[in-house]
Amino acid sequence: MTSEKTYTVTGMSCGHCELSVREEIEELAGVESAQADHTTGQVVVRGSEVDDAVVRAAVAQAGYEVAS
Amino acid sequence: MTSEKTYTVTGMSCGHCELSVREEIEELAGVESAQADHTTGQVVVRGSEVDDAVVRAAVAQAGYEVAS
Repeated sequence: MTSEKTYTVTGMSCGHCELSVREEIEELAGVESAQADHTTGQVVVRGSEVDDAVVRAAVAQAGYEVAS
Repeated sequence: MTSEKTYTVTGMSCGHCELSVREEIEELAGVESAQADHTTGQVVVRGSEVDDAVVRAAVAQAGYEVAS
């Protein structure tokens, strides 16, 4: 089953940042697609059995942080 | 003869932006190195016979603009 989760990510300031976050998340197992918007900080991840902790680690790997 | 020129570039918001500008400028003939700082907007280009119009075009190619 595909689900959609929205995370708030701090620190993205431009389209390059969005791309870095998106690429890092899209490498994760189970992820079908990711979208990031630096103006809102929202990152929408679509996939199946996507683990929040793994997404959080991928965001950190890209150099950003999932808020709260 | 190597010279150093400093340009003010608008629109850079993060380290990715700095890298985009730097890479585009470093491809230019005569350029030895380029440094970009998004906090000040300053881009320092070192090289010989570096043409301002060509630097301006490279910055535009990266998606930014040389001020004034």
